[in-house]
Amino acid sequence: MAYRAQLKVRFADIDHAGIVYYPRFLHYFHVAMEEFFEEALGIDYPQVLERHRFGLPTVHLETDFHRPLRYGDRIEVEVEVEHVGATSVRWRYTVYRLGDPEPVAEGRTVTVGLDLDRYEKRAIPDFLRQAFSRLRS
Amino acid sequence: MAYRAQLKVRFADIDHAGIVYYPRFLHYFHVAMEEFFEEALGIDYPQVLERHRFGLPTVHLETDFHRPLRYGDRIEVEVEVEHVGATSVRWRYTVYRLGDPEPVAEGRTVTVGLDLDRYEKRAIPDFLRQAFSRLRS
Amino acid sequence: MAYRAQLKVRFADIDHAGIVYYPRFLHYFHVAMEEFFEEALGIDYPQVLERHRFGLPTVHLETDFHRPLRYGDRIEVEVEVEHVGATSVRWRYTVYRLGDPEPVAEGRTVTVGLDLDRYEKRAIPDFLRQAFSRLRS
Amino acid sequence: MAYRAQLKVRFADIDHAGIVYYPRFLHYFHVAMEEFFEEALGIDYPQVLERHRFGLPTVHLETDFHRPLRYGDRIEVEVEVEHVGATSVRWRYTVYRLGDPEPVAEGRTVTVGLDLDRYEKRAIPDFLRQAFSRLRS
Repeated sequence: MAYRAQLKVRFADIDHAGIVYYPRFLHYFHVAMEEFFEEALGIDYPQVLERHRFGLPTVHLETDFHRPLRYGDRIEVEVEVEHVGATSVRWRYTVYRLGDPEPVAEGRTVTVGLDLDRYEKRAIPDFLRQAFSRLRS
Repeated sequence: MAYRAQLKVRFADIDHAGIVYYPRFLHYFHVAMEEFFEEALGIDYPQVLERHRFGLPTVHLETDFHRPLRYGDRIEVEVEVEHVGATSVRWRYTVYRLGDPEPVAEGRTVTVGLDLDRYEKRAIPDFLRQAFSRLRS
Repeated sequence: MAYRAQLKVRFADIDHAGIVYYPRFLHYFHVAMEEFFEEALGIDYPQVLERHRFGLPTVHLETDFHRPLRYGDRIEVEVEVEHVGATSVRWRYTVYRLGDPEPVAEGRTVTVGLDLDRYEKRAIPDFLRQAFSRLRS
Repeated sequence: MAYRAQLKVRFADIDHAGIVYYPRFLHYFHVAMEEFFEEALGIDYPQVLERHRFGLPTVHLETDFHRPLRYGDRIEVEVEVEHVGATSVRWRYTVYRLGDPEPVAEGRTVTVGLDLDRYEKRAIPDFLRQAFSRLRS
């Protein structure tokens, strides 16, 4: 069962064409991932960065935008962990307008484990790997 | 010959991991497209939106992030028009750190013509189609 | 009794110095105002803009930043309407870290009524004036 | 003689009311300050942060917004150092639409010297103080 973060489209998210500026969708994905860590995994992402010095920068990204979002729309961003590899995690994000079963946008990202002190690739730590697998079972 | 927009990585572009927040790359793509309209096509994009009531929202997006950008980096964003269809334009963006031949990030987007009054699909107007084709010859 | 909006400091809000980028505080003020309209006034701000074609752009702004905010901080933004004039509204915003009585930042703004079709000054509409005064009593 | 940074109002800077979102002005101030360091002082601000571990967070801010900015506007942001104290610097920013002598917005900020390792107040370093005073003479 996938986790869904609830967000609101804000005044500032709208661009000159009157719809959500598309890079904001990627920001929504990130905010949803932050909520997912806290709510679904029970892990404080700021602490992962600061204490464990571990980050998950995005190395690949694909998104399909099916229809525009407007100011005042309430949205849900579904977060799914598709695959946890040795040093990478594949994510899937699906954006819904609240109460509408048709997705507004669908995205996939690949993030890699990064040692934040050395800026080198680092294996996904065990506590994270276990939290991800608890989620599936 | 592709057009290159020159940008600087700003203080605010950096995230908590000390590197450019990945949605900012998509913003760089958009800024580079704005510069491309002005400098390479000789067309004022704000006027396209306001007078012609024509927009080009993004419906598909793919990006590979090869290496991080840091505060103070000077970058070039290469903009290429890969294909102009009846109602869509396919773009390619390649980000370079100034003086470094290896790309930092590579992206592709598909944008569709939109009537900004009716929010309906609209064919690429002739003046734009001609400007795009002058560019190739 | 003042209204308080609850927000979280997001990954992207942090700048290269490791603290919240100060223009983000002004964004927090705006988001808190959007919540205030919905939750305290019971008025849908997007509808104010779209149906009533009425906006409240900021013409004056003062802020004191007492201490930094960091990634993961949960904050409350207190919103107070200090004065409703013929064509202007004066606001006060106070940012607290959750559970800490000392304010993190304090701001005042003056917004003026704007006709969004003509971009001319416009008196505060009665439905808004009444909603503001119900709040005080 | 004051320094002026030249900027363009970008597509993403526009909000749902069709004008520049007011927190973006504060971002323009910061970008203008970054340019001022590089162009007027001849000092690389990223290096100030990274090598000297010295930052200048904003503790006070006042802005008057005289008229709106729109998409496509070219602007100049004038940067003046009003006062250099023991641990603080007072700045003045004036935004002009290119070719128009009437200011669009006027701001003042106070920034304080910060040790970025200890997050404690720190005196303005001599190399900075000297660069500021060369500017006045």
